[in-house]
Amino acid sequence: MNREGALKNIKVLDMGRVLAGPFCSAILGDLGADVIKLEDLKGDMARTSLPIGGYFAAFNRSKRGITLNLKSEKGKDIFLKLVKDVDVLVENFRPGVMKKLGLSYETLRDINPRLIYAAVSGYGQDGPYSQRAGLDPVAQAMSGIMSVTGFSGNDSVRCGASICDVMAGMHAVIGILAALNYRNLTGKGQMIDVSLCDAGVVAMASVNQQYLTTKSIPGKLGNGYLAYAPGGCYKAVDGEVVINGVNWEAFCKTIGREDLLCVPGYEEVSNRVKDREKIDSIINEWTSKRTVAEVVEIMNANKLVAAPVLNVEQVVNDEHIAGVRNMFTEVHLEGFGDVRITNQCIKLSATPAQVSDPPAMGQHNNDVYGALGLTAEEIEQLKVEHVI
Amino acid sequence: MNREGALKNIKVLDMGRVLAGPFCSAILGDLGADVIKLEDLKGDMARTSLPIGGYFAAFNRSKRGITLNLKSEKGKDIFLKLVKDVDVLVENFRPGVMKKLGLSYETLRDINPRLIYAAVSGYGQDGPYSQRAGLDPVAQAMSGIMSVTGFSGNDSVRCGASICDVMAGMHAVIGILAALNYRNLTGKGQMIDVSLCDAGVVAMASVNQQYLTTKSIPGKLGNGYLAYAPGGCYKAVDGEVVINGVNWEAFCKTIGREDLLCVPGYEEVSNRVKDREKIDSIINEWTSKRTVAEVVEIMNANKLVAAPVLNVEQVVNDEHIAGVRNMFTEVHLEGFGDVRITNQCIKLSATPAQVSDPPAMGQHNNDVYGALGLTAEEIEQLKVEHVI
Repeated sequence: MNREGALKNIKVLDMGRVLAGPFCSAILGDLGADVIKLEDLKGDMARTSLPIGGYFAAFNRSKRGITLNLKSEKGKDIFLKLVKDVDVLVENFRPGVMKKLGLSYETLRDINPRLIYAAVSGYGQDGPYSQRAGLDPVAQAMSGIMSVTGFSGNDSVRCGASICDVMAGMHAVIGILAALNYRNLTGKGQMIDVSLCDAGVVAMASVNQQYLTTKSIPGKLGNGYLAYAPGGCYKAVDGEVVINGVNWEAFCKTIGREDLLCVPGYEEVSNRVKDREKIDSIINEWTSKRTVAEVVEIMNANKLVAAPVLNVEQVVNDEHIAGVRNMFTEVHLEGFGDVRITNQCIKLSATPAQVSDPPAMGQHNNDVYGALGLTAEEIEQLKVEHVI
Repeated sequence: MNREGALKNIKVLDMGRVLAGPFCSAILGDLGADVIKLEDLKGDMARTSLPIGGYFAAFNRSKRGITLNLKSEKGKDIFLKLVKDVDVLVENFRPGVMKKLGLSYETLRDINPRLIYAAVSGYGQDGPYSQRAGLDPVAQAMSGIMSVTGFSGNDSVRCGASICDVMAGMHAVIGILAALNYRNLTGKGQMIDVSLCDAGVVAMASVNQQYLTTKSIPGKLGNGYLAYAPGGCYKAVDGEVVINGVNWEAFCKTIGREDLLCVPGYEEVSNRVKDREKIDSIINEWTSKRTVAEVVEIMNANKLVAAPVLNVEQVVNDEHIAGVRNMFTEVHLEGFGDVRITNQCIKLSATPAQVSDPPAMGQHNNDVYGALGLTAEEIEQLKVEHVI
């Protein structure tokens, strides 16, 4: 636990499962909050998601872990005691599940008016789709992201990263921390409602704007840009390289094609956009004779924008990303072993984020329930009764 | 301005340009912070980005606006007075630019030790790539996102939404709000360093894990999942539909193919993954005889997961997304007109986020500089001298 972190005074009860909820709480934990992950007796599905151990650790680092059967009366009593004691509760059940358990926000608020309750769901707490199951691929489909991803004329494709899950978790963190600021001013908690689908819609803001302003429907542009050329992804001898010709004159000189500067009209970006394919084939001709590293080096030396398309192995071994930026770290999952996972990326100068170990199922039952005032015998009895 | 927002006590100086920095500050503004957008006399490039007016409004709503020439001595003096008066500074210059202006974090911290200084950049403040220009497509390339987006055997493609820009802005918000909590405890500000590339790497956490645990390099899966089948994007009569067959038995019954339940081995998900193509073609046969709406309705009625691939026009006119969830809203940009933009998605019960108007260039010079103690004549003189 990061006891010197920026959120060291904050206690979080994490009822999240799989990705968006757990990721939200993991960020809070990295930043210093005391996060208690609550699992039912079957455990978070993430514990058996592939790769086993790694998947769970990636989104449940920096937490302690307890088990609790919320369908038992004793379990509910204990839960209400826990809620009295925490600042933040995070859940990503389908809307209505907490209410069915008798644990709606309204009920919990009466017990702890300072509680900040964050609900993450596929489509949000209200509206006609609220009861539909929402997963990342569905949110990418519904938010329009898939409709603008892929090559022109081809099938729609999702972004390979679970971005709607990730962004919904991040929006929940922002809501929680803003609500904490408000609670500092007023003493009052509140409820936060964030959805995977809405998170996707927000990520599309610049693309949505095309339709909102001009009523033309954005389509698939592959790796090109609607309003700028040249730019895209090109083929080098040993891989793909992204280039953005931010400065047309410097770009033409860099690829030894000053002659393009004499093509009438090409000084206007709109004409270059019209001739995108022609210009792209000229660029591909140039890149195809060079390695990715050569292209990147030449472009960067001329203050142009270029980058290799790295695969995950290259990212994990990159001297900048893995080295200086320290984007991968190791944690220990009790009963499983050491796991290398993706690190926290928010770098704070005075209170550095710090990723600590994920919990085994119920690893901190004794600590957490003991702190609630239960004796060792009572805790043992709860285990026998399948309450924890 | 959202004077009843959760961050109503917070004042932000926004030096952001184009997307990640301005988006970070816009979120703070929506949540109630008083955000002052500072532009040089040429203005943020976003003012001329397409669609004109709309692009700027989308990422600069909920702010006031001032102009200031930081290369003039008078401009610097005024800037230091502003810094004394704010809680948060946001910038997304290339690392080193603020230092060159004589306005490094260290300098500003000496003037205002409570200052929270958030720097968003392409690759972060340190490391061998820090001086490279970082744009969203480059971050998508470098973080591995492009390498897992697209169809197997095809070219890499970026996610059509500017997700690295958006996520970097969100990580900066999280860092700022966590630092505010720490400042409440200690009185001390700090610096936050967030990069587009790191944000992309974090979004890949679940994909990275495959390599981190098994050393196999994740590739392009189109719309399929590595560890589960069936699931993907299928063709209906009038469009594409995403389906996730979360429950194999219910799924087979729903598409009238109980016979598949008798195929030896198919009860194991690993065998269905191996036969993914065969199963997908059976699903496509079923969807191809139905409309998208029919497929979604049938799947949802059977508690299976399905969603249409919506284009932006459909999203903007959707009864749930645009209607109940209110994901689009209108603002007024002085000198331009009314603009419909994407709304804030974080729903807070006690202190609802509220999107307010974006500023015209220097629209609030008189207000902001007046509040610093400058007279109307002095402000007029600064205009004459091209300081503001």
